[in-house]
Amino acid sequence: MGTVDIPGVMLTPLKSIFHPKGDVFHAMKTGDPGFTGFGEAYFSTVNHGDVKGWKKHRRMTLNLVVPAGEIWFVLHDDRNGSPAKDSFFDVTLSPGNYQRLTIPPGIWVGFKGLGKQLNLLLNLADLEHDPAESENIPLDRIPFDWSRK
Amino acid sequence: MGTVDIPGVMLTPLKSIFHPKGDVFHAMKTGDPGFTGFGEAYFSTVNHGDVKGWKKHRRMTLNLVVPAGEIWFVLHDDRNGSPAKDSFFDVTLSPGNYQRLTIPPGIWVGFKGLGKQLNLLLNLADLEHDPAESENIPLDRIPFDWSRK
Repeated sequence: MGTVDIPGVMLTPLKSIFHPKGDVFHAMKTGDPGFTGFGEAYFSTVNHGDVKGWKKHRRMTLNLVVPAGEIWFVLHDDRNGSPAKDSFFDVTLSPGNYQRLTIPPGIWVGFKGLGKQLNLLLNLADLEHDPAESENIPLDRIPFDWSRK
Repeated sequence: MGTVDIPGVMLTPLKSIFHPKGDVFHAMKTGDPGFTGFGEAYFSTVNHGDVKGWKKHRRMTLNLVVPAGEIWFVLHDDRNGSPAKDSFFDVTLSPGNYQRLTIPPGIWVGFKGLGKQLNLLLNLADLEHDPAESENIPLDRIPFDWSRK
Protein backbone atom coordinates (compact mmCIF):
# COMPACT_ATOMS: atom_id res chain seq x y z
CA MET A 1 0.00 0.00 0.00
CA GLY A 2 1.41 3.39 -0.91
CA THR A 3 0.49 6.70 0.60
CA VAL A 4 0.40 10.11 -0.99
CA ASP A 5 0.35 13.56 0.48
CA ILE A 6 -3.40 14.25 0.45
CA PRO A 7 -4.94 12.70 3.58
CA GLY A 8 -7.22 9.80 2.67
CA VAL A 9 -5.81 9.38 -0.84
CA MET A 10 -4.08 6.03 -1.31
CA LEU A 11 -2.28 4.15 -4.04
CA THR A 12 -2.27 0.39 -3.64
CA PRO A 13 -0.21 -1.77 -6.01
CA LEU A 14 -2.29 -4.60 -7.45
CA LYS A 15 -1.35 -8.03 -8.67
CA SER A 16 -1.55 -9.05 -12.29
CA ILE A 17 -1.18 -12.76 -12.85
CA PHE A 18 0.30 -13.96 -16.10
CA HIS A 19 -1.65 -16.63 -17.96
CA PRO A 20 -0.65 -17.84 -21.44
CA LYS A 21 -4.27 -17.56 -22.64
CA GLY A 22 -4.82 -14.11 -21.09
CA ASP A 23 -3.81 -12.49 -17.81
CA VAL A 24 -5.83 -11.94 -14.65
CA PHE A 25 -5.82 -8.58 -12.87
CA HIS A 26 -6.87 -8.07 -9.27
CA ALA A 27 -9.12 -5.07 -8.55
CA MET A 28 -10.45 -5.23 -4.99
CA LYS A 29 -11.31 -7.55 -2.14
CA THR A 30 -13.37 -6.66 0.91
CA GLY A 31 -10.32 -6.83 3.18
CA ASP A 32 -8.23 -4.47 1.03
CA PRO A 33 -6.96 -1.02 2.02
CA GLY A 34 -9.44 1.59 0.83
CA PHE A 35 -12.45 -0.73 0.88
CA THR A 36 -15.29 1.04 2.69
CA GLY A 37 -18.21 -0.98 1.36
CA PHE A 38 -19.72 -1.81 -2.00
CA GLY A 39 -22.43 0.35 -3.54
CA GLU A 40 -21.87 0.31 -7.29
CA ALA A 41 -19.35 -0.65 -9.92
CA TYR A 42 -19.22 1.23 -13.21
CA PHE A 43 -16.82 1.89 -16.05
CA SER A 44 -15.88 5.22 -17.54
CA THR A 45 -13.89 5.74 -20.69
CA VAL A 46 -12.04 8.86 -21.75
CA ASN A 47 -10.94 9.52 -25.30
CA HIS A 48 -7.33 10.26 -26.20
CA GLY A 49 -6.56 13.87 -25.33
CA ASP A 50 -9.91 14.54 -23.63
CA VAL A 51 -10.19 15.64 -20.00
CA LYS A 52 -13.18 14.87 -17.77
CA GLY A 53 -13.47 17.09 -14.70
CA TRP A 54 -13.69 18.60 -12.23
CA LYS A 55 -15.94 16.46 -10.09
CA LYS A 56 -16.18 16.14 -6.31
CA HIS A 57 -18.19 13.61 -4.35
CA ARG A 58 -19.58 14.65 -0.99
CA ARG A 59 -20.05 11.17 0.47
CA MET A 60 -18.68 8.59 -2.00
CA THR A 61 -15.23 7.03 -1.69
CA LEU A 62 -13.88 6.10 -5.13
CA ASN A 63 -11.62 3.15 -5.84
CA LEU A 64 -10.26 3.42 -9.37
CA VAL A 65 -8.36 0.89 -11.46
CA VAL A 66 -7.31 1.11 -15.11
CA PRO A 67 -7.35 -2.29 -16.86
CA ALA A 68 -6.92 -0.85 -20.39
CA GLY A 69 -5.16 2.18 -21.83
CA GLU A 70 -3.53 4.95 -19.83
CA ILE A 71 -5.28 7.60 -17.75
CA TRP A 72 -3.76 10.60 -16.01
CA PHE A 73 -5.58 11.43 -12.78
CA VAL A 74 -5.26 14.82 -11.12
CA LEU A 75 -6.60 15.43 -7.61
CA HIS A 76 -7.04 18.75 -5.89
CA ASP A 77 -7.67 19.24 -2.19
CA ASP A 78 -9.49 22.45 -1.22
CA ARG A 79 -10.84 21.11 2.08
CA ASN A 80 -10.70 23.66 4.87
CA GLY A 81 -8.49 22.38 7.63
CA SER A 82 -6.77 19.78 5.47
CA PRO A 83 -2.98 19.81 5.85
CA ALA A 84 -2.88 19.46 2.06
CA LYS A 85 -5.26 22.37 1.36
CA ASP A 86 -4.71 23.89 -2.11
CA SER A 87 -2.35 21.08 -3.16
CA PHE A 88 -2.50 18.80 -6.19
CA PHE A 89 -1.64 15.15 -6.58
CA ASP A 90 -1.35 13.40 -9.92
CA VAL A 91 -0.68 9.86 -11.08
CA THR A 92 -0.89 8.00 -14.37
CA LEU A 93 -2.43 4.54 -14.18
CA SER A 94 -2.42 1.76 -16.76
CA PRO A 95 -1.99 -2.02 -16.87
CA GLY A 96 1.76 -1.24 -16.85
CA ASN A 97 1.45 0.83 -13.64
CA TYR A 98 -1.32 -1.24 -12.16
CA GLN A 99 -2.43 0.31 -8.87
CA ARG A 100 -5.71 1.16 -7.20
CA LEU A 101 -6.33 4.83 -6.51
CA THR A 102 -8.52 5.45 -3.47
CA ILE A 103 -10.11 8.90 -3.29
CA PRO A 104 -12.06 9.94 -0.19
CA PRO A 105 -15.06 12.28 -0.35
CA GLY A 106 -14.35 15.98 -0.70
CA ILE A 107 -11.49 15.85 -3.22
CA TRP A 108 -11.74 17.35 -6.72
CA VAL A 109 -10.92 14.84 -9.47
CA GLY A 110 -10.13 15.25 -13.14
CA PHE A 111 -8.66 12.77 -15.60
CA LYS A 112 -7.23 12.77 -19.10
CA GLY A 113 -7.04 9.96 -21.65
CA LEU A 114 -3.42 9.39 -22.68
CA GLY A 115 -3.71 6.12 -24.57
CA LYS A 116 -4.52 6.23 -28.28
CA GLN A 117 -6.99 3.37 -27.99
CA LEU A 118 -9.47 2.49 -25.25
CA ASN A 119 -8.79 4.25 -21.91
CA LEU A 120 -10.96 2.44 -19.38
CA LEU A 121 -11.40 2.96 -15.66
CA LEU A 122 -13.43 0.91 -13.23
CA ASN A 123 -14.81 2.68 -10.18
CA LEU A 124 -15.68 0.43 -7.26
CA ALA A 125 -17.71 2.91 -5.27
CA ASP A 126 -19.11 2.54 -1.77
CA LEU A 127 -22.40 4.24 -2.73
CA GLU A 128 -24.78 3.93 -5.63
CA HIS A 129 -24.63 6.80 -8.09
CA ASP A 130 -26.60 9.76 -6.76
CA PRO A 131 -26.27 13.07 -8.61
CA ALA A 132 -27.18 14.89 -5.39
CA GLU A 133 -23.95 13.86 -3.65
CA SER A 134 -21.58 15.04 -6.38
CA GLU A 135 -20.68 18.43 -7.78
CA ASN A 136 -19.28 19.33 -11.20
CA ILE A 137 -17.46 22.52 -12.09
CA PRO A 138 -15.88 23.59 -15.40
CA LEU A 139 -12.26 22.61 -15.98
CA ASP A 140 -10.99 26.20 -15.92
CA ARG A 141 -12.36 26.81 -12.42
CA ILE A 142 -9.32 25.07 -10.92
CA PRO A 143 -6.18 26.21 -12.73
CA PHE A 144 -4.04 23.27 -13.82
CA ASP A 145 -1.86 22.77 -16.88
CA TRP A 146 -3.50 19.77 -18.55
CA SER A 147 -1.21 20.10 -21.58
CA ARG A 148 1.75 18.80 -19.56
CA LYS A 149 0.85 15.25 -20.64
CA MET B 1 -33.73 -8.68 -16.72
CA GLY B 2 -33.60 -11.67 -19.02
CA THR B 3 -33.87 -15.29 -18.04
CA VAL B 4 -32.28 -18.27 -19.66
CA ASP B 5 -33.02 -21.94 -19.39
CA ILE B 6 -30.51 -22.96 -16.73
CA PRO B 7 -32.03 -22.21 -13.29
CA GLY B 8 -30.14 -19.40 -11.58
CA VAL B 9 -28.42 -18.17 -14.74
CA MET B 10 -29.50 -14.65 -15.68
CA LEU B 11 -28.78 -12.11 -18.36
CA THR B 12 -29.44 -8.51 -17.37
CA PRO B 13 -29.19 -5.75 -19.98
CA LEU B 14 -27.02 -2.88 -18.73
CA LYS B 15 -27.02 0.80 -19.53
CA SER B 16 -24.26 2.48 -21.44
CA ILE B 17 -24.40 6.25 -21.33
CA PHE B 18 -23.02 8.21 -24.24
CA HIS B 19 -20.60 11.00 -23.41
CA PRO B 20 -18.72 12.98 -26.09
CA LYS B 21 -15.45 12.59 -24.15
CA GLY B 22 -15.94 8.87 -23.45
CA ASP B 23 -18.93 6.73 -22.50
CA VAL B 24 -19.96 5.38 -19.11
CA PHE B 25 -21.00 1.73 -18.66
CA HIS B 26 -22.97 0.43 -15.73
CA ALA B 27 -21.80 -2.84 -14.18
CA MET B 28 -23.64 -3.53 -10.91
CA LYS B 29 -25.46 -1.91 -8.02
CA THR B 30 -26.33 -3.57 -4.75
CA GLY B 31 -30.04 -3.58 -5.59
CA ASP B 32 -29.55 -5.25 -8.98
CA PRO B 33 -30.80 -8.70 -10.01
CA GLY B 34 -28.07 -11.23 -9.41
CA PHE B 35 -26.35 -9.27 -6.64
CA THR B 36 -25.72 -11.62 -3.71
CA GLY B 37 -23.01 -9.63 -1.94
CA PHE B 38 -19.57 -8.31 -2.73
CA GLY B 39 -16.45 -10.36 -2.05
CA GLU B 40 -13.98 -9.52 -4.80
CA ALA B 41 -13.72 -7.83 -8.18
CA TYR B 42 -11.14 -9.00 -10.71
CA PHE B 43 -10.49 -8.86 -14.43
CA SER B 44 -9.67 -11.72 -16.71
CA THR B 45 -8.53 -11.42 -20.29
CA VAL B 46 -8.64 -14.08 -22.98
CA ASN B 47 -6.61 -13.92 -26.15
CA HIS B 48 -8.18 -14.13 -29.60
CA GLY B 49 -9.01 -17.76 -30.33
CA ASP B 50 -8.07 -19.06 -26.89
CA VAL B 51 -10.52 -20.89 -24.63
CA LYS B 52 -10.36 -20.84 -20.82
CA GLY B 53 -12.29 -23.65 -19.15
CA TRP B 54 -13.86 -25.62 -17.72
CA LYS B 55 -14.21 -24.18 -14.25
CA LYS B 56 -16.92 -24.64 -11.65
CA HIS B 57 -17.35 -22.75 -8.41
CA ARG B 58 -18.91 -24.55 -5.48
CA ARG B 59 -20.02 -21.49 -3.52
CA MET B 60 -19.27 -18.36 -5.58
CA THR B 61 -21.90 -16.58 -7.68
CA LEU B 62 -20.26 -14.86 -10.67
CA ASN B 63 -21.46 -11.63 -12.23
CA LEU B 64 -19.65 -11.07 -15.51
CA VAL B 65 -19.54 -8.02 -17.74
CA VAL B 66 -17.43 -7.41 -20.86
CA PRO B 67 -16.40 -3.75 -21.25
CA ALA B 68 -13.89 -4.41 -24.07
CA GLY B 69 -13.67 -6.92 -26.89
CA GLU B 70 -15.98 -9.86 -27.43
CA ILE B 71 -16.16 -13.02 -25.33
CA TRP B 72 -18.17 -16.17 -25.98
CA PHE B 73 -19.37 -17.79 -22.76
CA VAL B 74 -20.50 -21.40 -22.65
CA LEU B 75 -22.24 -22.80 -19.57
CA HIS B 76 -22.95 -26.43 -18.82
CA ASP B 77 -25.30 -27.71 -16.15
CA ASP B 78 -24.57 -31.18 -14.79
CA ARG B 79 -26.28 -30.65 -11.44
CA ASN B 80 -28.24 -33.68 -10.32
CA GLY B 81 -31.89 -32.77 -10.00
CA SER B 82 -31.61 -29.64 -12.15
CA PRO B 83 -34.37 -29.42 -14.78
CA ALA B 84 -31.59 -28.32 -17.15
CA LYS B 85 -29.25 -31.22 -16.34
CA ASP B 86 -26.86 -31.96 -19.23
CA SER B 87 -27.84 -28.81 -21.12
CA PHE B 88 -25.65 -26.00 -22.44
CA PHE B 89 -26.25 -22.28 -22.62
CA ASP B 90 -24.09 -19.88 -24.57
CA VAL B 91 -23.98 -16.14 -25.11
CA THR B 92 -21.53 -13.67 -26.62
CA LEU B 93 -20.99 -10.48 -24.65
CA SER B 94 -19.30 -7.25 -25.72
CA PRO B 95 -19.84 -3.51 -25.36
CA GLY B 96 -22.22 -3.93 -28.32
CA ASN B 97 -24.25 -6.62 -26.51
CA TYR B 98 -23.77 -5.15 -23.08
CA GLN B 99 -25.39 -7.42 -20.51
CA ARG B 100 -24.44 -8.87 -17.14
CA LEU B 101 -24.23 -12.65 -16.97
CA THR B 102 -25.06 -14.07 -13.54
CA ILE B 103 -23.84 -17.61 -12.92
CA PRO B 104 -24.81 -19.42 -9.72
CA PRO B 105 -22.53 -21.95 -8.01
CA GLY B 106 -22.38 -25.43 -9.50
CA ILE B 107 -22.33 -24.53 -13.21
CA TRP B 108 -19.38 -25.33 -15.50
CA VAL B 109 -18.08 -22.26 -17.34
CA GLY B 110 -15.79 -21.86 -20.32
CA PHE B 111 -15.11 -18.82 -22.47
CA LYS B 112 -13.39 -17.97 -25.72
CA GLY B 113 -11.85 -14.70 -26.91
CA LEU B 114 -13.47 -13.62 -30.17
CA GLY B 115 -12.16 -10.07 -30.49
CA LYS B 116 -8.83 -9.52 -32.22
CA GLN B 117 -7.69 -7.01 -29.58
CA LEU B 118 -8.24 -6.94 -25.82
CA ASN B 119 -11.02 -9.25 -24.61
CA LEU B 120 -11.72 -8.19 -21.03
CA LEU B 121 -14.19 -9.49 -18.48
CA LEU B 122 -14.91 -8.15 -15.02
CA ASN B 123 -16.14 -10.61 -12.42
CA LEU B 124 -18.01 -9.07 -9.50
CA ALA B 125 -17.96 -12.09 -7.22
CA ASP B 126 -19.73 -12.53 -3.91
CA LEU B 127 -16.72 -14.30 -2.36
CA GLU B 128 -13.01 -13.66 -2.30
CA HIS B 129 -10.99 -15.95 -4.52
CA ASP B 130 -10.44 -19.29 -2.80
CA PRO B 131 -8.95 -22.11 -4.88
CA ALA B 132 -10.62 -24.62 -2.52
CA GLU B 133 -14.11 -23.68 -3.67
CA SER B 134 -13.50 -24.06 -7.40
CA GLU B 135 -12.72 -26.99 -9.63
CA ASN B 136 -10.93 -27.06 -12.99
CA ILE B 137 -11.15 -29.83 -15.57
CA PRO B 138 -9.58 -30.07 -19.04
CA LEU B 139 -11.57 -28.66 -21.93
CA ASP B 140 -12.12 -32.04 -23.57
CA ARG B 141 -13.81 -33.47 -20.46
CA ILE B 142 -17.09 -31.80 -21.47
CA PRO B 143 -17.63 -32.25 -25.21
CA PHE B 144 -18.47 -28.97 -26.93
CA ASP B 145 -17.63 -27.68 -30.39
CA TRP B 146 -15.59 -24.57 -29.61
CA SER B 147 -14.75 -24.11 -33.31
CA ARG B 148 -18.30 -22.92 -34.00
CA LYS B 149 -17.25 -19.33 -33.29
